[in-house]
Amino acid sequence: MTLQEYMAARQKDVDAALSRWVPPETENPSAIHRAMRYSLFAGGKRIRPLLAITAAEAVSDAPSGVADAACALELIHTYSLIHDDLPALDNDDLRRGRPTCHKVFGDALAILAGDALLTLAFEVLAKLERTSADRRIDLVRELATASGTVGGMIGGQVNDIEGEGKIPTAALLESIHRAKTGALLRCSVRFGAIYAGADTAQLAALTEFGEHVGLAFQIVDDVLDVEQTSERLGKTAGKDAAQKKVTFPAVYGIQRSRAMAEQERLAAHQALNVFGHRANRLREMADLVVRRSV
Amino acid sequence: MTLQEYMAARQKDVDAALSRWVPPETENPSAIHRAMRYSLFAGGKRIRPLLAITAAEAVSDAPSGVADAACALELIHTYSLIHDDLPALDNDDLRRGRPTCHKVFGDALAILAGDALLTLAFEVLAKLERTSADRRIDLVRELATASGTVGGMIGGQVNDIEGEGKIPTAALLESIHRAKTGALLRCSVRFGAIYAGADTAQLAALTEFGEHVGLAFQIVDDVLDVEQTSERLGKTAGKDAAQKKVTFPAVYGIQRSRAMAEQERLAAHQALNVFGHRANRLREMADLVVRRSV
Repeated sequence: MTLQEYMAARQKDVDAALSRWVPPETENPSAIHRAMRYSLFAGGKRIRPLLAITAAEAVSDAPSGVADAACALELIHTYSLIHDDLPALDNDDLRRGRPTCHKVFGDALAILAGDALLTLAFEVLAKLERTSADRRIDLVRELATASGTVGGMIGGQVNDIEGEGKIPTAALLESIHRAKTGALLRCSVRFGAIYAGADTAQLAALTEFGEHVGLAFQIVDDVLDVEQTSERLGKTAGKDAAQKKVTFPAVYGIQRSRAMAEQERLAAHQALNVFGHRANRLREMADLVVRRSV
Repeated sequence: MTLQEYMAARQKDVDAALSRWVPPETENPSAIHRAMRYSLFAGGKRIRPLLAITAAEAVSDAPSGVADAACALELIHTYSLIHDDLPALDNDDLRRGRPTCHKVFGDALAILAGDALLTLAFEVLAKLERTSADRRIDLVRELATASGTVGGMIGGQVNDIEGEGKIPTAALLESIHRAKTGALLRCSVRFGAIYAGADTAQLAALTEFGEHVGLAFQIVDDVLDVEQTSERLGKTAGKDAAQKKVTFPAVYGIQRSRAMAEQERLAAHQALNVFGHRANRLREMADLVVRRSV
């Protein structure tokens, strides 16, 4: 199976699981379920759930039900995009190639749809059927911490907003991105590891892998925002510079940023040494994250 | 101990627990922790945590750590107030006698502070130290369901918004309030019961109690919105009529609404029969909910 085929198969699992967990549009109140599904099924790459599933498979053969646990990561990611795109925050009209949630459903419903996806993420974890309560609680703790204010996603968003217009230093850059995107990507890898019952050494190795992949992902994201068109990205390009965001290209320039991403890719590979060939798919995914063009 | 003394002591426990769980204002990013604390410590009555603690005490003597679990209810309640007050939703300037969160911190930070409180509620439950993982997962499931879109708080908010200007029928009224405020109040009582290890019969009785108290609470809330001043309520009075909300006074008139609240109070008492005198405090709280003037 090629990486593309592998990823397509896992994406299908994730989408099927998401569709099971999110109430159908016919369920009352219909409007919010439409809004939730509109943003969830907008052609996202499902990178976070795929990292979780692939990490789980590095630890143990195809752990049953891991796609359900992985859904929670996509629910959190999608809620954060919906709220981030609101006029009060990034005020963005385009996401995944389509009008943003609030452009279609209005600000009120977009706020509530984000709240609902966030809430549903934890409902999904609590209702997982094929893993113990102890493990489910570990996942709830991981996800809540990675999404929270102290070193987590929301904290990173606040720092990102506060950083606009500030002098872009390396220290500021690192603190923003370690939290804003890094925490949830790291959490995604740990999610899979925990779900699959990783031992301490495996969890530590996968956590390190997650940190390097997370950083690589963000560097490439920043570079693509400079280099690509909105049409190709499916979201507004060139926004970081317009909003004077603290980005890797702003601090290091494009060329050095690219070299840093490559360095992170190699470090990510190295972290996987203990797994041998079992982690080949994870290595390929790290390569993909760095070499993607959208 | 009078009811007032009892409640003041429990409120103090809840506030102390909240203050332990919410990061201090000095923690980075400071702005969001300030916003979270501003709304949390604005003199709320802590009705939901108090219902949880009192219900727990009806089942078992002062279960250790119940105030921590009860915090999660107040975190959810406060997040819902912050988001509800936003310009895109109810656009309210006054809450608990003070300017609303977004008036002080801006819309962006208010949205993120709400998200953060919602996320923290689940972090708190995952990190409870004095109860089993099984019970913690039960609490996560209860809270997520009661806060969600299907019969839960967010669903009720959507129905409430969509109901504005509609002909206020009894059926519409019931479906809105059973979800919008009823679900979380019912959940609060169940929270305490579950935490304290209630058996099936006890949980069923307390659930029934929670449903009646929840309905009584909402009826009285609607009546007070008509009868009281903004100054006394600490929030904008008369808003329901201005926004053409579907309320109990709109459907039944003031006098019949009051009679219905009294009926719910009696039904709440009756549900507690199996507990004998152990539930006296819960009975007093039901009385207070109906007879309050703010």
